[in-house]
Amino acid sequence: MPRLRELGEAEVLRRLIAARALGPGVAVGPGDDAAVLEPEAGKQLVATTDAFVEGRHFLSSWGTPADWGARLAAANLSDLAAMAAAPRWALLSMGLRAEHEMDSLLELQSGVARALGAHGAVLVGGNLVAVQGEEWFDLALLGEVRTGAAWRRNGARPGDLLFVTGAPGRAGAGFQIARALGARAREAEWRPLLEAWLMPAARIPAALALAAASGVRAAIDLSDGLPGDLAHLCEASGVGAVVDLAAWGVDPLLERAARELNTTAEALRLSPSDDYELLLAVDPAARAGCEAAAQAAGTQLSCIGRVTEPENGITLAASGRAIDAAGFDHFR
Amino acid sequence: MPRLRELGEAEVLRRLIAARALGPGVAVGPGDDAAVLEPEAGKQLVATTDAFVEGRHFLSSWGTPADWGARLAAANLSDLAAMAAAPRWALLSMGLRAEHEMDSLLELQSGVARALGAHGAVLVGGNLVAVQGEEWFDLALLGEVRTGAAWRRNGARPGDLLFVTGAPGRAGAGFQIARALGARAREAEWRPLLEAWLMPAARIPAALALAAASGVRAAIDLSDGLPGDLAHLCEASGVGAVVDLAAWGVDPLLERAARELNTTAEALRLSPSDDYELLLAVDPAARAGCEAAAQAAGTQLSCIGRVTEPENGITLAASGRAIDAAGFDHFR
Repeated sequence: MPRLRELGEAEVLRRLIAARALGPGVAVGPGDDAAVLEPEAGKQLVATTDAFVEGRHFLSSWGTPADWGARLAAANLSDLAAMAAAPRWALLSMGLRAEHEMDSLLELQSGVARALGAHGAVLVGGNLVAVQGEEWFDLALLGEVRTGAAWRRNGARPGDLLFVTGAPGRAGAGFQIARALGARAREAEWRPLLEAWLMPAARIPAALALAAASGVRAAIDLSDGLPGDLAHLCEASGVGAVVDLAAWGVDPLLERAARELNTTAEALRLSPSDDYELLLAVDPAARAGCEAAAQAAGTQLSCIGRVTEPENGITLAASGRAIDAAGFDHFR
Repeated sequence: MPRLRELGEAEVLRRLIAARALGPGVAVGPGDDAAVLEPEAGKQLVATTDAFVEGRHFLSSWGTPADWGARLAAANLSDLAAMAAAPRWALLSMGLRAEHEMDSLLELQSGVARALGAHGAVLVGGNLVAVQGEEWFDLALLGEVRTGAAWRRNGARPGDLLFVTGAPGRAGAGFQIARALGARAREAEWRPLLEAWLMPAARIPAALALAAASGVRAAIDLSDGLPGDLAHLCEASGVGAVVDLAAWGVDPLLERAARELNTTAEALRLSPSDDYELLLAVDPAARAGCEAAAQAAGTQLSCIGRVTEPENGITLAASGRAIDAAGFDHFR
């Protein structure tokens, strides 16, 4: 009788999903960023859920309740962005200690609602239960997408270009800087890193613009760090990949954080990091259109490599080493 | 800065809901058994979420993981039954300790999936996080209903008859018997009470049959005990009610449990009890049709009183006392 600790998160998930059966009206079941449901022909719904636990996903000493609420919303919005779905409705379920202050709870809910509202979604219900241990907040989010238009993890083909939105690695670096520097991390020079950690941008506008431009063949959101998420995409698509670290532009903020943390910018970029950025496999013929769409949506898009035949595996070109496919594991 | 403990669950919920704004595509927002969403004209979705916390909603010494999974599903299915919606898709989010055994987790998931599957719904996704404290399981459930056909809490009119499905009070009595008698509660005579607690029936077949028969004007599920839930329905509808305890048939199992627990069957029937039965306000002209529909669905339906003008308040006729509107409060 193995325990979750012995199996690790990925294997636990694999076993849970393998034990499930699908039914009618389910276009995409467990195993992608979100499920795709088809209440009727022509329109599909995309459904996802994500939970934050006190002490692990948020520290009450950093950020306000509204920040943490917005971050929970961003985590869920990011799953819909990775499916190119337009967010619509959310349910917020919470496990709270009786000592929780009402005002702080309203602030948190308002953080969730504002972050959802900025992308057209609304909080329509929820649930409350009392807990003795860590508090938790679980958001289920529904979005809409034209039938068949949802991005999947499994559509990448050899020759596709790999792009990332924004600056992956910054969220994890922000967290490490906060932990290492304490109050000094609040200085202006670290602000963009702390914001990447505490207030990640939801890539909904970029996703909807890119979907309209067409050319994205596969997508996944970066919630566990680039190596693990790239491995998920490659596995689902049955392809390999080369990430060209030399070609990927320098992030001066990661460089500065690396010096402070006695590590390298590359390590920060490739470590587990709740970035909620998108990793995209793009048809090379659509490159210009995708770059223009991302720019119009105000989102940085960087080409970091390309999709290869599966035999090549996944390699990091500059360092020449095979990628470490392990992202963050909740149970190890 | 009041704390949740000082406000109590109902007031916490009221304040949270009052702070929310609604948006387009939301036919019924927070404050009913479930939210009603309208992706497009003609078809509506009903969405609800419910969570169970270890030690409060389930005791690992009673029931199997599959039982607890089925009970979590029943709690959510009951919310859809109270809206006359057909269950379709669910997301299961879990907070688990690393020591949790994989086999037991699969059993739990299978309990959820089987209970959902019995009513046409399927598990389409979920989320895992690690916890140090109590484990928790949060299910979000979506159902479908023809536009405008969802039952609400607010449609009861003076003169309507009040019905309940099944035998309210048994779930709470089963829990008390288990706690009071320990191993002796496993004897055959207590079995129906323990099953009402551990394996409540989801009233989906009865709800769909009653909706097809028409005549139900308002509905709520009994998850906190009859008095509190009746008060919610009356408040939402702007009506009063008389519950005729003398006319409501005797439940011999509650009588027996009352003797064992040194209380009365009436007290057990009116105490907080997670029955997941339905309380319905029915057009008197539709009484025969509703009774026939419930019978065809194999569900007992008892007339327990009637809806009155709001000035009358809510009274329990046989005992002549005003109703205690407080159900179970998570925070007190």
